[in-house]
Amino acid sequence: MAEAGLYISPLEDYSAFLGFNRDRKKTPFTIIGIPLDISSSYRSGCSLAPQSIRNTSRSIELCSFVNNINLEDIGFEDLGNIIMAPGDIITSLKRIEIVIESLLNEGRRIFILGGEHTLTYGSFKAFAKIFKNPCLLVFDAHLDLRDEYLGTKFNHATVIRRIIDDTNVLKVIFIGSRAISMEESSYALEKNDKVSIYRFWGSRIPIDIIDRVREDISRCDAIYISIDMDVIDPAYAPGVQTPEPLGIDPQNLLQILSRLIDTRTWVTDIVEITPVYDHSETTSFLASRIIIEIASILIESLNIEKSYCKI
Amino acid sequence: MAEAGLYISPLEDYSAFLGFNRDRKKTPFTIIGIPLDISSSYRSGCSLAPQSIRNTSRSIELCSFVNNINLEDIGFEDLGNIIMAPGDIITSLKRIEIVIESLLNEGRRIFILGGEHTLTYGSFKAFAKIFKNPCLLVFDAHLDLRDEYLGTKFNHATVIRRIIDDTNVLKVIFIGSRAISMEESSYALEKNDKVSIYRFWGSRIPIDIIDRVREDISRCDAIYISIDMDVIDPAYAPGVQTPEPLGIDPQNLLQILSRLIDTRTWVTDIVEITPVYDHSETTSFLASRIIIEIASILIESLNIEKSYCKI
Amino acid sequence: MAEAGLYISPLEDYSAFLGFNRDRKKTPFTIIGIPLDISSSYRSGCSLAPQSIRNTSRSIELCSFVNNINLEDIGFEDLGNIIMAPGDIITSLKRIEIVIESLLNEGRRIFILGGEHTLTYGSFKAFAKIFKNPCLLVFDAHLDLRDEYLGTKFNHATVIRRIIDDTNVLKVIFIGSRAISMEESSYALEKNDKVSIYRFWGSRIPIDIIDRVREDISRCDAIYISIDMDVIDPAYAPGVQTPEPLGIDPQNLLQILSRLIDTRTWVTDIVEITPVYDHSETTSFLASRIIIEIASILIESLNIEKSYCKI
Amino acid sequence: MAEAGLYISPLEDYSAFLGFNRDRKKTPFTIIGIPLDISSSYRSGCSLAPQSIRNTSRSIELCSFVNNINLEDIGFEDLGNIIMAPGDIITSLKRIEIVIESLLNEGRRIFILGGEHTLTYGSFKAFAKIFKNPCLLVFDAHLDLRDEYLGTKFNHATVIRRIIDDTNVLKVIFIGSRAISMEESSYALEKNDKVSIYRFWGSRIPIDIIDRVREDISRCDAIYISIDMDVIDPAYAPGVQTPEPLGIDPQNLLQILSRLIDTRTWVTDIVEITPVYDHSETTSFLASRIIIEIASILIESLNIEKSYCKI
Amino acid sequence: MAEAGLYISPLEDYSAFLGFNRDRKKTPFTIIGIPLDISSSYRSGCSLAPQSIRNTSRSIELCSFVNNINLEDIGFEDLGNIIMAPGDIITSLKRIEIVIESLLNEGRRIFILGGEHTLTYGSFKAFAKIFKNPCLLVFDAHLDLRDEYLGTKFNHATVIRRIIDDTNVLKVIFIGSRAISMEESSYALEKNDKVSIYRFWGSRIPIDIIDRVREDISRCDAIYISIDMDVIDPAYAPGVQTPEPLGIDPQNLLQILSRLIDTRTWVTDIVEITPVYDHSETTSFLASRIIIEIASILIESLNIEKSYCKI
Amino acid sequence: MAEAGLYISPLEDYSAFLGFNRDRKKTPFTIIGIPLDISSSYRSGCSLAPQSIRNTSRSIELCSFVNNINLEDIGFEDLGNIIMAPGDIITSLKRIEIVIESLLNEGRRIFILGGEHTLTYGSFKAFAKIFKNPCLLVFDAHLDLRDEYLGTKFNHATVIRRIIDDTNVLKVIFIGSRAISMEESSYALEKNDKVSIYRFWGSRIPIDIIDRVREDISRCDAIYISIDMDVIDPAYAPGVQTPEPLGIDPQNLLQILSRLIDTRTWVTDIVEITPVYDHSETTSFLASRIIIEIASILIESLNIEKSYCKI
Ligand SMILES: [Mn+2]
Ligand SMILES: [Mn+2]
Ligand SMILES: [Mn+2]
Ligand SMILES: [Mn+2]
Ligand SMILES: [Mn+2]
Ligand SMILES: [Mn+2]
Ligand SMILES: [Mn+2]
Ligand SMILES: [Mn+2]
Ligand SMILES: [Mn+2]
Ligand SMILES: [Mn+2]
Ligand SMILES: [Mn+2]
Ligand SMILES: [Mn+2]
Repeated sequence: MAEAGLYISPLEDYSAFLGFNRDRKKTPFTIIGIPLDISSSYRSGCSLAPQSIRNTSRSIELCSFVNNINLEDIGFEDLGNIIMAPGDIITSLKRIEIVIESLLNEGRRIFILGGEHTLTYGSFKAFAKIFKNPCLLVFDAHLDLRDEYLGTKFNHATVIRRIIDDTNVLKVIFIGSRAISMEESSYALEKNDKVSIYRFWGSRIPIDIIDRVREDISRCDAIYISIDMDVIDPAYAPGVQTPEPLGIDPQNLLQILSRLIDTRTWVTDIVEITPVYDHSETTSFLASRIIIEIASILIESLNIEKSYCKI
Repeated sequence: MAEAGLYISPLEDYSAFLGFNRDRKKTPFTIIGIPLDISSSYRSGCSLAPQSIRNTSRSIELCSFVNNINLEDIGFEDLGNIIMAPGDIITSLKRIEIVIESLLNEGRRIFILGGEHTLTYGSFKAFAKIFKNPCLLVFDAHLDLRDEYLGTKFNHATVIRRIIDDTNVLKVIFIGSRAISMEESSYALEKNDKVSIYRFWGSRIPIDIIDRVREDISRCDAIYISIDMDVIDPAYAPGVQTPEPLGIDPQNLLQILSRLIDTRTWVTDIVEITPVYDHSETTSFLASRIIIEIASILIESLNIEKSYCKI
Repeated sequence: MAEAGLYISPLEDYSAFLGFNRDRKKTPFTIIGIPLDISSSYRSGCSLAPQSIRNTSRSIELCSFVNNINLEDIGFEDLGNIIMAPGDIITSLKRIEIVIESLLNEGRRIFILGGEHTLTYGSFKAFAKIFKNPCLLVFDAHLDLRDEYLGTKFNHATVIRRIIDDTNVLKVIFIGSRAISMEESSYALEKNDKVSIYRFWGSRIPIDIIDRVREDISRCDAIYISIDMDVIDPAYAPGVQTPEPLGIDPQNLLQILSRLIDTRTWVTDIVEITPVYDHSETTSFLASRIIIEIASILIESLNIEKSYCKI
Repeated sequence: MAEAGLYISPLEDYSAFLGFNRDRKKTPFTIIGIPLDISSSYRSGCSLAPQSIRNTSRSIELCSFVNNINLEDIGFEDLGNIIMAPGDIITSLKRIEIVIESLLNEGRRIFILGGEHTLTYGSFKAFAKIFKNPCLLVFDAHLDLRDEYLGTKFNHATVIRRIIDDTNVLKVIFIGSRAISMEESSYALEKNDKVSIYRFWGSRIPIDIIDRVREDISRCDAIYISIDMDVIDPAYAPGVQTPEPLGIDPQNLLQILSRLIDTRTWVTDIVEITPVYDHSETTSFLASRIIIEIASILIESLNIEKSYCKI
Repeated sequence: MAEAGLYISPLEDYSAFLGFNRDRKKTPFTIIGIPLDISSSYRSGCSLAPQSIRNTSRSIELCSFVNNINLEDIGFEDLGNIIMAPGDIITSLKRIEIVIESLLNEGRRIFILGGEHTLTYGSFKAFAKIFKNPCLLVFDAHLDLRDEYLGTKFNHATVIRRIIDDTNVLKVIFIGSRAISMEESSYALEKNDKVSIYRFWGSRIPIDIIDRVREDISRCDAIYISIDMDVIDPAYAPGVQTPEPLGIDPQNLLQILSRLIDTRTWVTDIVEITPVYDHSETTSFLASRIIIEIASILIESLNIEKSYCKI
Repeated sequence: MAEAGLYISPLEDYSAFLGFNRDRKKTPFTIIGIPLDISSSYRSGCSLAPQSIRNTSRSIELCSFVNNINLEDIGFEDLGNIIMAPGDIITSLKRIEIVIESLLNEGRRIFILGGEHTLTYGSFKAFAKIFKNPCLLVFDAHLDLRDEYLGTKFNHATVIRRIIDDTNVLKVIFIGSRAISMEESSYALEKNDKVSIYRFWGSRIPIDIIDRVREDISRCDAIYISIDMDVIDPAYAPGVQTPEPLGIDPQNLLQILSRLIDTRTWVTDIVEITPVYDHSETTSFLASRIIIEIASILIESLNIEKSYCKI
């Protein structure tokens, strides 16, 4: 990993996800933390999320909910965190890009523990370099499609727009977005060949959107899933930068994910968790569970050898 | 506003709702904070709610959920807070009455940021002076129909009874009440010409109650909506004086509101939020969203010129 | 109560459940707190739960949700707490057994305010001595069926296995379990004559499991219900030792309980509440409500004289 | 206690101070809680303080710091709390007056667990009726000498002025006051025959003020000590309504108290503790300790039979 | 203020310091908030500090501690906050520089409400442009003299070194620094013509350092005071990014300030307060008090017309 | 370490103290965490302390306060935590004994990160096996000399008595104890050949006790220092099980330690930190600093090669 290695803080400084660190040869999955926390406008604190997610993950049982696979057999390689450049978002995003590119070149299926949503710019840039017809599936209460926010171009309110501007992304699909501004709504309309928005409010997104989303992503060669935890209702995910009421519930999210994820899914990021507002750590516990479930769906899709918990 | 003006703390001491203060000529809506916090028996702290609701409102996007209206065009006049008389509920209620009466005389559609539920006495008294056949729609886990509580007549446990006693209210309709006492149940039965109770527990009130409520309010000339946030399940609204389990979810509340609100709705109060128990401010975020949605429904009903966010 | 009395801390040190202490002759129900908090592996703090549940219970209205019974007529005898032996789980469990046996001998219907789940071992042992064909209905996100955990045999992760090993329990039925390990899944399979698991994730368990559970318990002479609050989704019950996402909602839990409880139900315990993580006390409020509702269902089943709140 | 008894909530609803309730014949000391919380302007929540002080007191060891007396022999009678009239400060103050007068008539040495500072009005009124030449020693960061505050006469900012206006208090002495307004400073100057102010900021008040204070109180027949916990630095007492920096430390407070208290001291109140802001309960722990130490000083002064812890 | 004005968020969005906004002609003092929060490595959240300081300031009494001046006569102009560029520290620092330069050109005495310590770079750059022989007095537990930190040049750990590198600062004096690294200690030694360090740990810095500091600053034409709140012991100032034990107490800080401040003092910044860790807001209360006291010392030095609180 | 190794959780699960793990050959110091949390009677939660202390230690600068030694050169070996047996204090204490004995046999200077105070029994037993004339220096607000507590023999209230009973300890010296019971005071008096108590309350213990303590320990061949963090005033160390007011300040503690520690000091434990009550982590920060300072004093005493930070 040459240069990439320079930007990763040594593993022994962090407890591994789930409490063990599986050798790369035995698992397709790599965990990498990205404690970016640099452009928040309201609250801040999501740099502490990778540690918090890992911490809660060690109390999680390893039989998956969606398909009863025993994750213990397969597990995750956990590389630790990418070292952020304090106060310098451009450098930080560049480091993210280098590390993710290196991991994708090595054929890893990646789970990113954010960090603020802006990190998706760096990682998607790497993703778009590696794969043809790259697509981005965004679960977010917001669209993050502003052109500029408080005078800067790279931040959590503009990140998806920057990706559309700067990469060859084929399709950006938003699921569960509900809090939008006029500026974003106009821009999305204008870009409606590239951007699909499944706007919903309330606890359940009708499952019949699945077919339309599948159609949207039918020409994608590779899919990047970005989960801004504020897509979920604050009852279930209170510990985020901007809690937006009337979100989906986690059951609905898992149902949708289990029908959309297939072998084209290479990167998943989970962003915007803010532990200092996450009383009783319920948001981090939920993030840990979501990662396990996505991994289980991928194991099924990838047809990896596995065992089941029988109940 | 002559005398009323004396009781309002100067606007520049408070950040306006949504972060901007629209001129009265351009919007029918007036925000007024009422930090009453004087008669609580269990916890206290709801005097800090107006500030907390305004604070969270500044992170809210302005396209409404229920009908996609762009609120930025219309906005709200925010007058700041009514100054409470410390330890003197009678004087405080009188000031509330004077200010609300003055605003209604000026034809404003009012949103009150409470404060404890007792404030509804003062504002409804003004309301009942201005309008013929005034009605009160109460969303509350409780009935607040006790005759006396710990030896006093004016407090959060007696407020609706006092309104029935002291005003010419035509109809009081409770929606979502679930935690009641024998005393209240007996009283309500006795007054069943005037009082309707739609008691429910659990997340969803069947929408078919709407027709019955519509019938109940058919003879009302003007409607006052009082939302005690404890009507909502504590999962979604933990920051209240008395969290009562098994409440409705916010989606259900918005659905009901969107079918009941019409041009007869003049005042809405949102009461009992207690910020010090509102971890991650989710209750205040929800209150901000509810206000925006009610305003949007009113804009539609009142046929005000507007623009839409198109998604 | 002879020896049993020695282990109970004098009543006047604790506020009674609901704020009043009904004489034993007027109510079949006895409340007993068990502040066991000795074997936690992740967090701790559930020794403070009995006090917290009692505290919140005093703000609860006394008309039941499920059947509108006025609980004030009947009420609860509240004996206070069993004194735990610090650092000595064996002695603590023995004291629990002695007290519960004594109460059952006196024909009391018991509600236990936990305390960690391990206490169920002591109380079920007593239960299994008194009743023939005793059964255990467990509501828990977990199975607690490990043989050993961190080198010990008696703790919250092994408690149900120990009960199966050490008592003549006829049937153990798990409802709502979702987070399991391979070890537990294998053991349960092996013991499938004795153990039934209704595994579910998500907010609603289909009510049609009721018939199957009824069949499972058809040969039981007496039923012990153990409610580990983590069976409920952390949105509704954040204040527990190990919040496990994707749990059932409280409405669903009450619906299931109201169809399963009958005169064979003698003991109910509510365990694992951890007040220091229970922001706004919503978990304790919910526990108080669950106890009132179970008591109301029992009043109906036992055909005790009662009055109704009429609404 | 006739009428007084009507206003006291039954004892069994509260855990006694120190965890035991000594018979009146064996101890001169009576504890009474006054959960007044009605006129706060900034924060609120001090109605929960009596419960919090009692709760922490049960973890306190019973050998006094100042003179090594074993408090266990003597202990306290704990009557529980006076029931406040929600939202009605005049009625609440009247109840306080009636109860305190009754207790003083019975010759009790009283410790009041507040509640907001305004309660001192009610209790001092009783005190001034019973004793000739009554004096008031106030430990407070503030003077509470405003004539009116936000339009009312009875609140935490005016309480001492009201006492000077409405009672025959001989002398009011402030110790440790530091945060004053021009209005108060002018008023105090005007009343300098009656009012002495020992203004200080910083951790230690020089002990040589003692002689001057002694001179000030030389003609007093009975002394009432009112301790607003904000006199102490917020490092030691964070859980108060208005934390004022640069306060005295608790060691200094105890030193001063131990030199000023004598047999003329009949009532001590400890006010303004706000548990929801009292993280780790350190302010309540400190209040418990202060009460024990004052009692020990009184035991010495009153020459009561006692035993000592010998170390 | 031309360009500077562009970067200031409109005043009506913020409550003014002390609750009133004095006209510029009547006061030499200008308050400006700088919510910079971009380069934190451990915790974050200091963007919320300006709002928190203003909020607590409204409960502060206006007679100063150090010299009894009535601040109400003079007060402060409060311009609101400088708008930070999310994720872009260079642009943010430039805006700070422009605004501070503009204010100094207008002859204002400035109080900056931080924000992270890095902001001092922007404001000192402006300061060093305006004044000859500019000096910097730093109160900080740390030296912030690293050359680079996690790969970037501008952050809270390097800010003072950057100032030494990039400006014509005549002298940098550290008071109360205690937590230093070898790298910083070596650098400071090397620069000992320019840098003086008064390293201390424990609650009181001996006042006799004053003469040495006075000597150090004797050739300075203008003095900038930067107060990193972590210089104070965490008992008094818990709400900071990096609480460092064994700090000075606030009394000592005020004593030192009152002997060092004279008419050469033009800018004071108060940085690193992190409200989400500032339980009971004690750190913000202390910051408000420090500002009032520094203003009072300046009023005395500047010989401005004033009145005194007489006690 | 044979058997000892079995009880230690693998290092890579924990971030090392100070963020790096020095090879045993280069440092005499070994860190070992003991998350015992089993016998608490009031609060619980100190099992999370080892992680919290390590976490804060990574933000600490490495030049010592007391003697300016650069700790980076020497550092610490950090072995991780001893695995506790849930609910089984006897087994847990045995594991502690085995591990500590093994480390002492290997000549390590040990720092224990507790855990509740009871752990000192296990580690001192090992200590007393290895060394002749072993002595115990206890810094604690309490004496922990009860014979039994709530019916058990091994808990935080009896631990020092058990050590006196069960080991050949030569001398037990208490420093800073202030909260004692009659039972303890009598016992201590009886054992006054073996037990010395330097009882104090208030912020500073006069340094002249040093000579008397030195005399007390003159015949000791090896010294074990046990620091119950509640010895320190709760202003500085709020995050403990039982905050006891009127404690010493950290400056005083370091002064005393720096005069008492010499080459006979082999083990130091720091116990009773309870992170969930440790707002802003100030207690853990302080513990980290205390460890660094004790190590620095030992480096000086042991005459190890070292470098100094020069300021
Ligand atoms: Mn986003
Ligand atoms: Mn978002
Ligand atoms: Mn209500
Ligand atoms: Mn209500
Ligand atoms: Mn369980
Ligand atoms: Mn469980
Ligand atoms: Mn006061
Ligand atoms: Mn005060
Ligand atoms: Mn700094
Ligand atoms: Mn610093
Ligand atoms: Mn101890
Ligand atoms: Mn202790």
